Amino acid sequence: MPIPFVRHSEVDVLIIGAGPAGLMCANALACARVNVRIVDQRAFKVTAGYGDGISPRTIEVLQSYGLAERLLKESSQIHLMAFYNPSSTGGIELTNRTPDITASSARYPFEAALHQGAIQDIFLDSMTSLGVEVERSTMPTSIELSKDEHELKDPASYPVRVALQSKSEDEKREEIVHAKFVIGGDGAHSWIRKQFNITMDGEQSDDIWGVVDFVPDTDFPDVRNKCLAQSNYGSMFLVPREQDRVRAYVQLEDKDVINPVTGRVDKDKMGPEQIFKKLLEPYKLVQKSDFSWWTIYSVGQRVASQFSVKNRVFIAGDACHTHSPKAGQGMNASINDTHNLAWKIALAVRGWADMSLLSTYESERRKFALELIAFDKKWSTLVCGQPLTEQNSDGVSPEHLVKAFQTDFTSGIGIHYHPSVAVNDRYQEIAGGLVLGKRVPPYKFMRAADARPFELQDLLPADFLFKLLVFTGEFNDPLQQARVESMVVDMQKRESFLNRYVTLGNSPFDIITISKGRKETFNILRLPTLLRSHWSKVFVDDTDTTGSFGGEGYSYYGVGPEGAVVAVRPDGYVGAIAPLDRIEVLDAYFASFMKIPA
Amino acid sequence: MPIPFVRHSEVDVLIIGAGPAGLMCANALACARVNVRIVDQRAFKVTAGYGDGISPRTIEVLQSYGLAERLLKESSQIHLMAFYNPSSTGGIELTNRTPDITASSARYPFEAALHQGAIQDIFLDSMTSLGVEVERSTMPTSIELSKDEHELKDPASYPVRVALQSKSEDEKREEIVHAKFVIGGDGAHSWIRKQFNITMDGEQSDDIWGVVDFVPDTDFPDVRNKCLAQSNYGSMFLVPREQDRVRAYVQLEDKDVINPVTGRVDKDKMGPEQIFKKLLEPYKLVQKSDFSWWTIYSVGQRVASQFSVKNRVFIAGDACHTHSPKAGQGMNASINDTHNLAWKIALAVRGWADMSLLSTYESERRKFALELIAFDKKWSTLVCGQPLTEQNSDGVSPEHLVKAFQTDFTSGIGIHYHPSVAVNDRYQEIAGGLVLGKRVPPYKFMRAADARPFELQDLLPADFLFKLLVFTGEFNDPLQQARVESMVVDMQKRESFLNRYVTLGNSPFDIITISKGRKETFNILRLPTLLRSHWSKVFVDDTDTTGSFGGEGYSYYGVGPEGAVVAVRPDGYVGAIAPLDRIEVLDAYFASFMKIPA
Repeated sequence: MPIPFVRHSEVDVLIIGAGPAGLMCANALACARVNVRIVDQRAFKVTAGYGDGISPRTIEVLQSYGLAERLLKESSQIHLMAFYNPSSTGGIELTNRTPDITASSARYPFEAALHQGAIQDIFLDSMTSLGVEVERSTMPTSIELSKDEHELKDPASYPVRVALQSKSEDEKREEIVHAKFVIGGDGAHSWIRKQFNITMDGEQSDDIWGVVDFVPDTDFPDVRNKCLAQSNYGSMFLVPREQDRVRAYVQLEDKDVINPVTGRVDKDKMGPEQIFKKLLEPYKLVQKSDFSWWTIYSVGQRVASQFSVKNRVFIAGDACHTHSPKAGQGMNASINDTHNLAWKIALAVRGWADMSLLSTYESERRKFALELIAFDKKWSTLVCGQPLTEQNSDGVSPEHLVKAFQTDFTSGIGIHYHPSVAVNDRYQEIAGGLVLGKRVPPYKFMRAADARPFELQDLLPADFLFKLLVFTGEFNDPLQQARVESMVVDMQKRESFLNRYVTLGNSPFDIITISKGRKETFNILRLPTLLRSHWSKVFVDDTDTTGSFGGEGYSYYGVGPEGAVVAVRPDGYVGAIAPLDRIEVLDAYFASFMKIPA
Repeated sequence: MPIPFVRHSEVDVLIIGAGPAGLMCANALACARVNVRIVDQRAFKVTAGYGDGISPRTIEVLQSYGLAERLLKESSQIHLMAFYNPSSTGGIELTNRTPDITASSARYPFEAALHQGAIQDIFLDSMTSLGVEVERSTMPTSIELSKDEHELKDPASYPVRVALQSKSEDEKREEIVHAKFVIGGDGAHSWIRKQFNITMDGEQSDDIWGVVDFVPDTDFPDVRNKCLAQSNYGSMFLVPREQDRVRAYVQLEDKDVINPVTGRVDKDKMGPEQIFKKLLEPYKLVQKSDFSWWTIYSVGQRVASQFSVKNRVFIAGDACHTHSPKAGQGMNASINDTHNLAWKIALAVRGWADMSLLSTYESERRKFALELIAFDKKWSTLVCGQPLTEQNSDGVSPEHLVKAFQTDFTSGIGIHYHPSVAVNDRYQEIAGGLVLGKRVPPYKFMRAADARPFELQDLLPADFLFKLLVFTGEFNDPLQQARVESMVVDMQKRESFLNRYVTLGNSPFDIITISKGRKETFNILRLPTLLRSHWSKVFVDDTDTTGSFGGEGYSYYGVGPEGAVVAVRPDGYVGAIAPLDRIEVLDAYFASFMKIPA
């Protein structure tokens, strides 16, 4: 018998699991031209169901990768949330319609609803265009992490050894992959997590919910809004979806299946239409189409005790946090996990990042996961609780529900990473609207050379560069001009961060200049050349030609006439702020997690 | 010798010439699923140069075909126009920067600049996706139009006979095409026009201009704005283009090439850099790249005496009007010619349009062409004239230039078709902001079912349907509700226009309902079903969830609480207006140019 040939290979990053966390990560690393592979044990990709709501912040993130346009074309949009409560005459009645998103700085003030398969296709098609495909029917069978501390600290080493098994029609193939980094995006039952004995902390709840996707025939007026209907028989969520579909989340309990007269299970009561009838009385809701997807789940609210092993193996998405889908956060949390991780890994692979940067993945995303669980517990309790009625004065009032729902948390805009090597804590006061550890809020500036309006967020693409926003103030003021020119001298010093990390002509920095001035008179050629590497890099804080928007950017970002330099991380979060005459603050910030590649 | 086989074929529409007019027409007819062919004598498509500026109205038109997105991705945008005049110290100086577009209702308040080849590619790719390709190296050798009046009036007949000759490497093929309609988009020297002895009325001017496209190296501050520089040595236009390119239009005269000292031609004076140096002093402008395209032209300002022959053969674009490129109108006029023509032909081919509708092509577009020539003459005279200086007090002042330039004409927004069978003249007063014969100006409404904001123009795609905008007023007001319900009864009558033209289940009408109301309380299910054929067809005049826009649409369109029905033509122009209780106005309007298909 021949000895089977086992292939050995090396890869910079191996991703296990092609769900939202894994695909976001694979696509991001492919964009960064990192050598990446992604495997999934499933033979086929998801085509329907699962997660569905993309939050405003996640739309911004997808936009930074150039993927939001397609999402916005294919998805339905949720602008309003409707609350229905028991009416005094029986059945339910509309108590409130309120904006689904209330975060005032949201660039996209709505949720985008689209089934997970279509969202994953957006990543898959982008990856394909970059030459990366998911290797399907492929699963890991063993994983070993080197114990050699020297090897673990050498960014050029391949300290993770993963055995992969792939099945085709009648053949099994084995491969040993040596990877610099491994990411487990392998779901709530994560195999990677179990291999490293990472515990999930938290508990299982008693709530059981059913979920169905279908095209409805209905006289229910809010079938195209997100809707929480709390009847005396239980709660139900309706979420509008692409192509006239809706998703219904239905709280399931004994009483849904037990006939209260006979006390016995009544199968005629069990179909979804009967459940809708009971929960949505007096409205009718029946399906026009077959159910395109359905499931039943119970909710566990748990967070992994650690998100990484020695900063070489990471887990992300459902592998490190599980919670109810009622706040619409699952897929968003997963996508934002690896959005946070990908640039750190890319910089590490390129030799720019110290291991200290990689540690911030766990500190930043575990903090977020704990906040998510806390929110989910509060929200689930309210939703599953009895509604306030004349008979039940202890119930949950509509006002209480609305208030609990309308937070910056659900929109994702509120994500706030605490000080670390990657988030400085100095000079917040000179740019109060650009909060250290939060994402750069959107604002429009005019490009100085051609008066074309640009959204600042679009100048911060996820291209794995740090953006330096140089707010020069009024350059025509001689005193301020002198300060700017002095700053340029400091930045151009050989030991400045700007020159320190340049290798083979590659710089991890991109300078965007935002001046005070009027488009009618501004002359970019007067600026020092460092601040205008190309004519397209200079902006003025002025109104557009129609006078409709713009012109208050300094004030919106809290930047005074003396200006500021703001370092934005590749993921769009504010990393550091420095006065023009304190460039050494940036030197220290970057030195805390970056190094000069070998 | 064998007798060569001559193929005979039939086609609904044959287009001669694959320039902007021909391609717009072919794509539009392909969208309408009309059987169309397009031939061009050139073996290859245009790849650079020629026309470049797309006006705000043309962007709206392209958007109505789903083509603006790509245009906006590829083009540069012109927001400002800069005027330079002789300075008192010699050379030129900036006198003014002013918005390039001042039409207050422009949805896209800028010009999109992109070379003609790239614009044509947008049409070509769209056509390809619809199964239509340009047949190249193919030219007509003869054209005959039937003289049989009966045949000419029968929309099902093929009264035009065109002999086509196509050349491949070593073979000539002949084909006789029998067409219902033929469109000549075959340029300023139109062969079609000559075959029918159509004269061009107007005159040739003495002005000679040179045009070059290149990537500049310059210290001229307005190289990314549209710029008119009038020096003591002549005039020059600069137009920013895609990918850092600019186009320079340079007025050429004897003095450009004659050495004033020797009185003889001095070839060293002739290069573009020398010309730029003279005209742009004290600024420098040299090319970084080779010229990607250049030409020299003299301007003729002429309009064809007729645009159609018996409403079976039409000419469009440069074939029927020539003028200077300085107002940036050439390609726009061509595209809008066939945008005006395509839906009329599509309706004729489907049997819906009376020949009277086809007559409006000439009446509408020849009127526009005459206005264009008048504007061009005025503008050219100003631009080619001597600038106002201390020495020349009769010269053209910067203020005068700016004023002449800032009209609704250059933006295309001002296009106004006069009353005809296709433009009614009644009841303008009940919807004063929707001007009969002008395009529907943009405004945002909230979709009632899901509070999603929509631009009304996006509800008026070029899908060859007439849109009926039903402004119901406040439906919750019992009196107004009664009026709306009575209107619905009228519209549903068997003899109503709405039912009259339906054949094989196809209707040429699409009803869009715009109600007064609040998104928080509106219930679309209360509306009569005719006004909500799908939940996506009903809108409320309310603000968006962030309170940023919307809510003043009735007022903006001049519609009172009593409502109105507005018929919008398939090309986006307002055709007719009727009070809710005067639906017979619409019956008469449609009867004037439509008929029931055989």
